[in-house]
Amino acid sequence: MRIDILTLFPGMFDAVLGESILKIAQDKKLVQCYLHNIRDYSDDKHKCVDDKPYGGGGGMVIKPEPLFHAIEEVERLDNLAAKKILLTPQGKTLNQEMANALSQENRLMLICGHYEGFDERIRSVIGLLEISIGDYVLTGGEIPAMVITDAVVRLIPGVLGGKSSLQNESFMNKMLDYPQYTRPAVFRGMKVPEILRSGNHKLIEEWRNEKSVKRTEERRPDLLEK
Amino acid sequence: MRIDILTLFPGMFDAVLGESILKIAQDKKLVQCYLHNIRDYSDDKHKCVDDKPYGGGGGMVIKPEPLFHAIEEVERLDNLAAKKILLTPQGKTLNQEMANALSQENRLMLICGHYEGFDERIRSVIGLLEISIGDYVLTGGEIPAMVITDAVVRLIPGVLGGKSSLQNESFMNKMLDYPQYTRPAVFRGMKVPEILRSGNHKLIEEWRNEKSVKRTEERRPDLLEK
Repeated sequence: MRIDILTLFPGMFDAVLGESILKIAQDKKLVQCYLHNIRDYSDDKHKCVDDKPYGGGGGMVIKPEPLFHAIEEVERLDNLAAKKILLTPQGKTLNQEMANALSQENRLMLICGHYEGFDERIRSVIGLLEISIGDYVLTGGEIPAMVITDAVVRLIPGVLGGKSSLQNESFMNKMLDYPQYTRPAVFRGMKVPEILRSGNHKLIEEWRNEKSVKRTEERRPDLLEK
Repeated sequence: MRIDILTLFPGMFDAVLGESILKIAQDKKLVQCYLHNIRDYSDDKHKCVDDKPYGGGGGMVIKPEPLFHAIEEVERLDNLAAKKILLTPQGKTLNQEMANALSQENRLMLICGHYEGFDERIRSVIGLLEISIGDYVLTGGEIPAMVITDAVVRLIPGVLGGKSSLQNESFMNKMLDYPQYTRPAVFRGMKVPEILRSGNHKLIEEWRNEKSVKRTEERRPDLLEK
């Protein structure tokens, strides 16, 4: 998969792309990530990318011109058509199903705003998908782009070690995960449930399913209703 | 506000804390962020922090011992009591109301897991708040900790320039933001709505409210139902 990230703060991605699963995926050549500074696509001689909003109000709005140029020129860098994603609180809320669908794409283009947001005309870009990572406001689209990259890349076959680690996770079956325990068997008087140390795989599986359902009922009954 | 982040990958935070609003907030001395490597709190001579899950299954689970030590020792670094937050898909889903509440705290401790998750016994830590940033699975709690830090820090008085920029945002009034436009007035044949160039502030405000309601109805009717 090729991932192009359009941002005014490319430096924000350095450490995240250089560590953990995102580094592994790139080292394994399963993912190529490219960062593009929207500022480089401004025709303005001062490389200005934002301006005051029409109609007044605080903050600055990203101008349409550098954004359209960046999207068009970055798209042309590869023959693969890019699924273009605008990170915005006004988009569709990301969930695991969407992450699964995006992990099937060959190329993603993640477009990050900052400040007060984008000039509305960006929404005329054909095929643009608008995604929000949740009902809260952030300073820009950079951290949401990291969220999408991480959620998607780890689903690409070969990125995570064993396939098994994907199957029992929270949200994969619309269910929260069961409790996990590791050594020591007793820690500050708190014991690991006997059943997990029994070696009886059938009983362990039943216990885990039961706990998973119970936890979902207690914490996220809305997931079960869906 | 003091923010302590407990993680196995402290390096992932360097670039994010060094740019944009998080850098500004730290430069203004409104926020102090400290990173702590959970590995440094392991009693194990190999500084091992994870082990296989009891009962079998793929992946590794973070052991209770280094986590408890890290939480307790980091808490003692300051007289301020820390609001302890575990980043987990099993937690309460973050929203703007929670971000507002957290921005009133004096000290946050963000605890990031990785791999298959934490040993269940971590949940016995007193006053632990479990937060999820959305219904999707990520490789670790690091990017969610960045989300919370960004969402909270920008709400601290003095961090953003004008107070006005906070009032008209998506989710602040359970409503999506209105469309924003900036120069040029015409871009590729697409015009800025006349009303925004009229200078009539009363009409502009009405237009914006109307668009905000309409957009919320179209895209997120669930927000209006709440």
